[in-house]
Amino acid sequence: MHGYSFYGKASKAFHQYPSLSKLLLVFTASGGGLLAITGGQTSPNPAYADAVQAHGECKKKKVVVLGTGWAGMSFLKTLNNPSYDVHVVSPHNYFAFTPLLPSVTCGTVEARSIVEPIRCITKKKDVQFREAVCYKIDAEKKKVFCRSSQETNLGGKEEFSIDYDYLIIAMGAKSNTFNTPGVEEHAHFLKSVEDALKIRQSVIDCFERASLPSVSEEERRRILHFVIVGGGPTGVEFAAELHDFVNEDLAKLYPTVKDYVKITILEAGDHILNMFDKRITAFAEEKFQRDGIDLKTGSMVVKVAEKEISTKVRATGQFVTLPYGMAVWSTGIGPRAEVMDFMKQIGQSNRRALCTDEWLRVVGCDNIYALGDCATINQRRVMEDIASIFSKADKDKSGTLSIKEFQEVVGDLCERYPQLEIYLKNKQMKNMADLLKTSQSESVEVDIETFTSALSEVDSQMKNLPATAQVAAQQGAYLANCFNRMEECEQCPEGPLRFRGVGRHRFHPFRYKHFGQFAPLGGEQTAAQLPGDWISIGHSTQWLWYSVYASKLVSWRTRILVISDWGRRFIFGRDSSRI
Amino acid sequence: MHGYSFYGKASKAFHQYPSLSKLLLVFTASGGGLLAITGGQTSPNPAYADAVQAHGECKKKKVVVLGTGWAGMSFLKTLNNPSYDVHVVSPHNYFAFTPLLPSVTCGTVEARSIVEPIRCITKKKDVQFREAVCYKIDAEKKKVFCRSSQETNLGGKEEFSIDYDYLIIAMGAKSNTFNTPGVEEHAHFLKSVEDALKIRQSVIDCFERASLPSVSEEERRRILHFVIVGGGPTGVEFAAELHDFVNEDLAKLYPTVKDYVKITILEAGDHILNMFDKRITAFAEEKFQRDGIDLKTGSMVVKVAEKEISTKVRATGQFVTLPYGMAVWSTGIGPRAEVMDFMKQIGQSNRRALCTDEWLRVVGCDNIYALGDCATINQRRVMEDIASIFSKADKDKSGTLSIKEFQEVVGDLCERYPQLEIYLKNKQMKNMADLLKTSQSESVEVDIETFTSALSEVDSQMKNLPATAQVAAQQGAYLANCFNRMEECEQCPEGPLRFRGVGRHRFHPFRYKHFGQFAPLGGEQTAAQLPGDWISIGHSTQWLWYSVYASKLVSWRTRILVISDWGRRFIFGRDSSRI
Repeated sequence: MHGYSFYGKASKAFHQYPSLSKLLLVFTASGGGLLAITGGQTSPNPAYADAVQAHGECKKKKVVVLGTGWAGMSFLKTLNNPSYDVHVVSPHNYFAFTPLLPSVTCGTVEARSIVEPIRCITKKKDVQFREAVCYKIDAEKKKVFCRSSQETNLGGKEEFSIDYDYLIIAMGAKSNTFNTPGVEEHAHFLKSVEDALKIRQSVIDCFERASLPSVSEEERRRILHFVIVGGGPTGVEFAAELHDFVNEDLAKLYPTVKDYVKITILEAGDHILNMFDKRITAFAEEKFQRDGIDLKTGSMVVKVAEKEISTKVRATGQFVTLPYGMAVWSTGIGPRAEVMDFMKQIGQSNRRALCTDEWLRVVGCDNIYALGDCATINQRRVMEDIASIFSKADKDKSGTLSIKEFQEVVGDLCERYPQLEIYLKNKQMKNMADLLKTSQSESVEVDIETFTSALSEVDSQMKNLPATAQVAAQQGAYLANCFNRMEECEQCPEGPLRFRGVGRHRFHPFRYKHFGQFAPLGGEQTAAQLPGDWISIGHSTQWLWYSVYASKLVSWRTRILVISDWGRRFIFGRDSSRI
Repeated sequence: MHGYSFYGKASKAFHQYPSLSKLLLVFTASGGGLLAITGGQTSPNPAYADAVQAHGECKKKKVVVLGTGWAGMSFLKTLNNPSYDVHVVSPHNYFAFTPLLPSVTCGTVEARSIVEPIRCITKKKDVQFREAVCYKIDAEKKKVFCRSSQETNLGGKEEFSIDYDYLIIAMGAKSNTFNTPGVEEHAHFLKSVEDALKIRQSVIDCFERASLPSVSEEERRRILHFVIVGGGPTGVEFAAELHDFVNEDLAKLYPTVKDYVKITILEAGDHILNMFDKRITAFAEEKFQRDGIDLKTGSMVVKVAEKEISTKVRATGQFVTLPYGMAVWSTGIGPRAEVMDFMKQIGQSNRRALCTDEWLRVVGCDNIYALGDCATINQRRVMEDIASIFSKADKDKSGTLSIKEFQEVVGDLCERYPQLEIYLKNKQMKNMADLLKTSQSESVEVDIETFTSALSEVDSQMKNLPATAQVAAQQGAYLANCFNRMEECEQCPEGPLRFRGVGRHRFHPFRYKHFGQFAPLGGEQTAAQLPGDWISIGHSTQWLWYSVYASKLVSWRTRILVISDWGRRFIFGRDSSRI
């Protein structure tokens, strides 16, 4: 009775003072050992907490998001269901528009123009942000352990834990050095805003150092040798930006050393931009040759020392040493240490990213999702489920499938196993019935062996998604939409038939829609590969690039700043102050 | 004969290929052990060098400028006589518009908007810039020794020397800690762009750290306590900027911690802004009180620890300890280590800045000039020269001065000893004759004793110039104008009569013209003290401030950037991303 009367009072207070609700919610949400921070209380009041918990309808599900990159930002931006209590943990309190990072390295665009504070993005939502690194996930106790990312004079690093109902891992990846010795110590990466700013300083440092009177000619040549390892889109774009920066701006300011500058791209494969159409690769290689950018394909870097890079030429097997002034390492991504630890913990240690199902749920965990560069979708094979599919489709349990029975599950089958749709498309078949017909002409009924053999080639169409901003952003938005309609879809599932179980999946599985990809090549020229294998190269594509990037920026502030940066560059050139 | 024929050929080549001239000049100029860097030659060619030296009319005087602050930049910008070979040595390859540094600390203006590369400023001139620190000056051998300021992975620091014909020391000053323990380790300074950027990060760090759930209420209060030591214009402007940043931007993004923020100014004197008119001081103190900025005057800081600042309250003699999260130290300036070393070397070790005469020439050195914050003008006293003045004025050597004789030297006297003019003005006398009359009524002739006693009070009017950008910029421009007209004035001296010597001084001595001073107080309000003791306070003065600062910026690029930053701030607020 006493408990009830307290609850009655609490409830009354709650309705009389609406601002209390927020306090209550934070209090409830942070139950597992955390302290409420809104009211300034340092110890939880048990009676009060009980009262709140009794007030069941207020209990929000707690969603913890790790990371504020493309996936995390896109999730936070799209989530609009107020019934979640969202906590975000990330070492960066901002989202960075990473496709413009190469532009930041040379000051074509300023770093501040491409970042937006996460608190601005989530301002109108009930989201708590914590600037920290999550160093451990306890999937059993549903808890994440975090450590402040600050190393200032404010005293040792703060540690805390947050419990969750749903965990969303969107921590991204790190640059992959393939254990090449010396890379961490001597080369620059180009993954974060800090990296880009360091590169910018370093480029100017090289020019200033080369301008000193005591530097020998040989040393000057070495200092002004810029080496880019990796001929992917990032490396190529950086090389192009650097070439423009040197030729359009620095050559005028450093006339005495400009002739010593050399830019080299080292690529282990046979071509740069190998994920693009061959026409783009060829155009880029020709343009770089005209620009005087030295392209060394088939060169594998085996060691990076303080002043020289050792490579192995694949064709001859010889080792070649290149003296260099600054090196940028951009050869692809690998898993972050925290993600590796978690992978070990859940028995996924043999993989290069967290493995999820088609709904982005981490395989082997409950209520944990992973998206973006730290995750990879493990598409289920048709062959694994072939017996279940057959038995589910064979409604009359006759042991054979009729075309009609089959057509009833075609839609679900294509949704559940998208490789099937691609297979049909590639084989230019209109529907599943054609597939069966080709293997056994004009037959109306097929048995399981025939069915299996008809579908045996389908899984060869499976492809991993690329580790791009586009994929991450689509995954974030997809997952937020699932969370937005969680209750609704719980009651009316909208996904495909469960072939191995009963009923339907709650949600449609994630499907990536490719909108094309750009490769800026410098000199106001860009190559673009758009859907339908449409290739566009040249100055007009640069303007398409400007338009698309400006429109994709995350806020009006960043949009205006980036556009005015581009204008500033056209009028005044890039700034070469060493800040 | 052989020598002549070589010269003939060289001369011919020189006229046929004008671009060679630059090469030749650099070669000549860098004769003293330095290598020519233009032609890419690593060893000087003696015959060639001889030939060039023989070509006497080409030999330019070598001017070495140390520093690219207000004084150095102003000198370089104003110098337009092509007969000097100018070398600039500075650890920063840019000029920073320092009056806007407090705005950079909170992102009202971006750092890049207030800097301009020195190479851009001197682009059209024959100026060599070296990014290095001058660590030693050898006045006897006319040489400066420099060390590269880079600490990157490019290998050890480069060292080199440059010889000079004229040396211009404009190295500025450093923040003065008055040997207070812990200041260097725990407090921020606000002298450079780097300082301002660090402060900006640190403010956001404090807010992020205070937002962590594990931080106790007491700790949160400590972390968000911002302490500014020193109530001068810089400290006051920073406090005002920080208050605006917190209230206009951060309060919205950090609603849970905003009530813990506290800003305190510690000032050892009785009032803040004590170099301004009392009305301005009073207005600022009242405004800060309304804003909730805690003003602790009469508090001397005795120690800065990691988490607390110890002060001594002058009135009571008690020691008080304040827990703090971030401290900014802005109590004035002291000499830099390199300048101190040089001062010791030339026997000026008991002073706080390099002592120069009224023509900015370092006392005790030949062809060395010092200007800006690293220098102070040692104005010659009338009393030191009173006998020489009397004898010079007494043309007929009668032992007494007539009013007429006296009036002939009045102009020169006032120019050489500006304190005399101030004295006359303060005493409301029209000319020097009045001065003599007051001491000895209606007398037509005065003897030396009377003359001495009439002028005995004059030297009390001498004042040191403040260490401001305005003074430094005027000194730089003054000196450059002297250098521009060096030959001209050698032949026709334009300065005042040499009272202790023969003839006239080559140049007019440096005279500072005060154009007023601003004190921005936040909330779009500024106080200004303009010439003629005209005081202006309020919103309209803020617009005056905007106009003056925009017009004073060093280039059209920075002007447009700063104005667009102001606009950006009005529309979107300040960015709180932790970059």
